[in-house]
Amino acid sequence: MNKITQLFNITYPIIQGGMIWCSGWKLASAVSNAGGLGLIGAGSMHPEILKEHIQKCKLATNNPFGVNVPLLYPQTDEIIDIIIKEGVKIVFTSAGNPASYTSVLKENGITVAHVVANTKFALKAQAAGVDAIVAEGFEAGGHNGYEETTTLVLIPMLKQIIDIPIIAAGGIGSGQAIYAAMALGAEGVQIGSLFASAFESSAHKNFKNAIINSTDGSTYLTLKKLVPVRLIRNEFFNRVHLAGLDGKSKEELAEILGHGRAKLGMFEGDTIEGELEIGQVASTIKQIKTVAEIFTTLRHEFNITSKNMTNRITF
Amino acid sequence: MNKITQLFNITYPIIQGGMIWCSGWKLASAVSNAGGLGLIGAGSMHPEILKEHIQKCKLATNNPFGVNVPLLYPQTDEIIDIIIKEGVKIVFTSAGNPASYTSVLKENGITVAHVVANTKFALKAQAAGVDAIVAEGFEAGGHNGYEETTTLVLIPMLKQIIDIPIIAAGGIGSGQAIYAAMALGAEGVQIGSLFASAFESSAHKNFKNAIINSTDGSTYLTLKKLVPVRLIRNEFFNRVHLAGLDGKSKEELAEILGHGRAKLGMFEGDTIEGELEIGQVASTIKQIKTVAEIFTTLRHEFNITSKNMTNRITF
Repeated sequence: MNKITQLFNITYPIIQGGMIWCSGWKLASAVSNAGGLGLIGAGSMHPEILKEHIQKCKLATNNPFGVNVPLLYPQTDEIIDIIIKEGVKIVFTSAGNPASYTSVLKENGITVAHVVANTKFALKAQAAGVDAIVAEGFEAGGHNGYEETTTLVLIPMLKQIIDIPIIAAGGIGSGQAIYAAMALGAEGVQIGSLFASAFESSAHKNFKNAIINSTDGSTYLTLKKLVPVRLIRNEFFNRVHLAGLDGKSKEELAEILGHGRAKLGMFEGDTIEGELEIGQVASTIKQIKTVAEIFTTLRHEFNITSKNMTNRITF
Repeated sequence: MNKITQLFNITYPIIQGGMIWCSGWKLASAVSNAGGLGLIGAGSMHPEILKEHIQKCKLATNNPFGVNVPLLYPQTDEIIDIIIKEGVKIVFTSAGNPASYTSVLKENGITVAHVVANTKFALKAQAAGVDAIVAEGFEAGGHNGYEETTTLVLIPMLKQIIDIPIIAAGGIGSGQAIYAAMALGAEGVQIGSLFASAFESSAHKNFKNAIINSTDGSTYLTLKKLVPVRLIRNEFFNRVHLAGLDGKSKEELAEILGHGRAKLGMFEGDTIEGELEIGQVASTIKQIKTVAEIFTTLRHEFNITSKNMTNRITF
């Protein structure tokens, strides 16, 4: 159908974001079986756990799937090694320098995409030889860029300077939004929040319920002195965000944050004291659906939008 | 063509945002003459000045034009009075309660739109009887909503709950973005930054040059303890933003801000010490064009996009 479906050999240009604590082999294989590209999120997995998820994913789908690797963990070498040995053919890298691992991945016949939030890293990723970039806007959940550029501005801005295919991420939770992202020049989309809320997501049900109960203003970008992260407002959020407003230092904020809060919130279901990383688009998600149901809805919405927009040829 | 062009009796569903220090009669009449809807920005005008601009605008165009009225100034009663007496037929209200003036405007045969950034005020505006709402996302310049919802998320969210036509604002500076906004469900767009940079804008040339020299990250939402405002980063920005990070109080920030900084920057051209209110989309604006040239470009981009997207009927 287009450059992204060809690049990954998938039916629909819909990629499921590789999210910590949400996207194990169950979610990734369900997305790949539905005709999209499922990604196992290595960010919350010890190398041995990742290996297990890759092996289970291979058994659960005959379609292409990939692994998302945030390039900021000390075990990255080991993770890349497992990915190559297990014969994974697609890797999405994020949160680090695209020059670090692109060559070794490409030498091993792996298709590589890198996640960026600004022009500087988009150009770096292209120069490093990645096959596609994921352009992620301010509305996305979890860790986020310092420029705070939204998807609606980021995609046209990158289209002005980048030649490789662009995958839009952040704020995409409907077929209308997929269609809009493509009109802006993206060749595909990466969807996080909607798949985090899916039946097959390994997120705790309390977190999934927090997603579907979100309204506008429920999520907010905070912890900007450390690494900006979009979270659902809960008691932990209020405490750490207020500390930021009061002028607390990076070190003081890191102490309030502590360790393991994302796992506590997203995987163990403590929606009061845990970190709940999710995108703004959570406000439009109203029920937990299976991946297959999500794909049916997205396709229906996309096709209706396409039909409606076809009457607007001249302007 | 659609509900917005019918509502305002215009050729293209493109509304020029009524911006302080940029949109006097010259810009508004140029936009209306090009087939869009020009708005005089009353926010930076004393009532007598506004009257003069309305009278000049009537002489400069036979097409419909309107006035944008921020509902937070002490002279609002007087301004509404002038608008009615001068026979202005379209008013866009913003920054206040839509219930305050909608009735009196409607009783005088005026078409009313209200600018919102969240569901609460969208519902309030609809209940107050406005004819359309402008949904303005986080990427927009100047004063901004507390929820920080981006245009890509805001439009679909409001489409779920609002029946009256929605005009998308924030992040729109190309025909691709107009097309995308319509795919999301908007019936029209309000464009600010691109028209602020136009030849006919009354902004100082130093401010226009600052717009076309913007790159990603050049603008940033700050002063959140007062009223959030998106500004170009300059020396004034750095000082007041750092004070916020240091935990300075609302009162201390107000003192640093002082009075007349928007005029100083946008109208008098002090790009170091003035407030330069502009949207993120400034990063995609590369040259100063006339309004007629801007419309030609937008139409061309829209039509190309429409043509490209017509091949995507099924999914």
